[in-house]
Amino acid sequence: MKLVRFGQAGQEKPGILDGNGALRDLSGHLSDIDGETLSPPALERLRGIDISALPAVTEPVRLGAPVAGTRQFIAIGLNYTDHAIEANMPIPAEPIVFTKAVSCIQGPNDDVRRPRQSDKMDWEVELGIVIGSRASYVAPEDALNHVAGYVVCDDLSERTFQLERGGTWDKGKGCETFGPVGPWLVTADEVGDAQQLDMWLEVNGQRMQTGNTRTMIFDCATIVSYLSQFMVLLPGDIITTGTPPGVGMGLKPPVFLKEGDVIELGIEKLGVQRHKVIAWDADR
Amino acid sequence: MKLVRFGQAGQEKPGILDGNGALRDLSGHLSDIDGETLSPPALERLRGIDISALPAVTEPVRLGAPVAGTRQFIAIGLNYTDHAIEANMPIPAEPIVFTKAVSCIQGPNDDVRRPRQSDKMDWEVELGIVIGSRASYVAPEDALNHVAGYVVCDDLSERTFQLERGGTWDKGKGCETFGPVGPWLVTADEVGDAQQLDMWLEVNGQRMQTGNTRTMIFDCATIVSYLSQFMVLLPGDIITTGTPPGVGMGLKPPVFLKEGDVIELGIEKLGVQRHKVIAWDADR
Repeated sequence: MKLVRFGQAGQEKPGILDGNGALRDLSGHLSDIDGETLSPPALERLRGIDISALPAVTEPVRLGAPVAGTRQFIAIGLNYTDHAIEANMPIPAEPIVFTKAVSCIQGPNDDVRRPRQSDKMDWEVELGIVIGSRASYVAPEDALNHVAGYVVCDDLSERTFQLERGGTWDKGKGCETFGPVGPWLVTADEVGDAQQLDMWLEVNGQRMQTGNTRTMIFDCATIVSYLSQFMVLLPGDIITTGTPPGVGMGLKPPVFLKEGDVIELGIEKLGVQRHKVIAWDADR
Repeated sequence: MKLVRFGQAGQEKPGILDGNGALRDLSGHLSDIDGETLSPPALERLRGIDISALPAVTEPVRLGAPVAGTRQFIAIGLNYTDHAIEANMPIPAEPIVFTKAVSCIQGPNDDVRRPRQSDKMDWEVELGIVIGSRASYVAPEDALNHVAGYVVCDDLSERTFQLERGGTWDKGKGCETFGPVGPWLVTADEVGDAQQLDMWLEVNGQRMQTGNTRTMIFDCATIVSYLSQFMVLLPGDIITTGTPPGVGMGLKPPVFLKEGDVIELGIEKLGVQRHKVIAWDADR
């Protein structure tokens, strides 16, 4: 299933794509797509619905992040060998964990804002894991049973805030609008092997990142298992799993985002995001 | 006002302490104490309630964390000069920011669990700020207007996970049960100057930490303003503001928590927590 949330920010309704890729309104069946919706039995109930009988949404609509109420937005750093090299950092011996503020989550095509005092705003196409059931000390071989599905994330980053302001990376990862998620939450059964997905990112039509999830250092099962040793993962949590090479910081000379830039990114089977960079205080 | 949540975990009701320090049931007036309850107008409505007319809760009850639905649990590191020295780390030039997983939040007197493979579990008494209204790029002089109140936090930490497992501190700060909050949320008006509060912590009756919030390097207004430059703070968010000297890691030789230890901690005006350390898998 491809689950979506559509409508104005803060008033999204749940939806689902039908076999033709057209949007259908799910709000007659559930109030929202959130941690509760994503439990294995709740997803099983959704699978029983006759999608072709749902109301079609034919007008153009804004998409929100496809999961509401996320309480933990966790990120893995330097999880692609080539990206660690371009970032001039050692290949990690175990996953690097940092946190994106959940208040940065937004729809896949919403404008992204360059923060005040930002001079090194950067892009990162990433595979996001969405947790479907509580996970604590799960073994790698059981870990994917706790995954509801997958999403595209742009792990937007401000490198000065991340790397030059002391302490952890969290300062440069959770700025307002730095968490575009979606367009769809594709359930794990429909994705199949999440370690064989092509991924790409373009800025103003120029290809910047080309990768495949098979080159992750730590795969999704390892990441979920590993994180669950350090914290309880909750339904609706999103784990963004690191980026392949081609971020702006790694170019020679480095290239960073500026107002007016258009970022487009996608992952095989998971859809495409497209967002424009605007000034922090534009259009408020 | 001193706001509390009481009852079994996951089924807490809202309550308030009356002038005699006795617990009164607020559930006739609101469904829970959460981000919405803490907005300035909502707190003003609460102030209009005749507390003495509320049902008294006379039986002994468990207390939950006094705010529900916290979406961001942010922590400041090394915010007391003496603690930075005992931790053998440089005095920070600007606030060190890390994240505690919100899934670690629990009641002030609930047992705390020593994680599997933990060998350096440590205590930290801290003043917690509870956000009452959305804060983005707020100036220091306006920052406290976004604070609903204050709480006691035990910023429980696993030093091996925090410092020896690569990457950020987040791995050692958000383990299940590592976030006892409460007993009360004391509204800012009742606390007055939050930079003049005595604080202390004992393990098995032995005094370990003695401090006062006046020795913070970055005060509460500075912290809220600073964080709001990097992320949007949401109503119900908790910011725990660092610990004074006397953590186990800083003793010579170091002392860490073991099963059966009893931790008691308090902050002037904000009440006292008391929790016992148990094994990770005890009493499940």
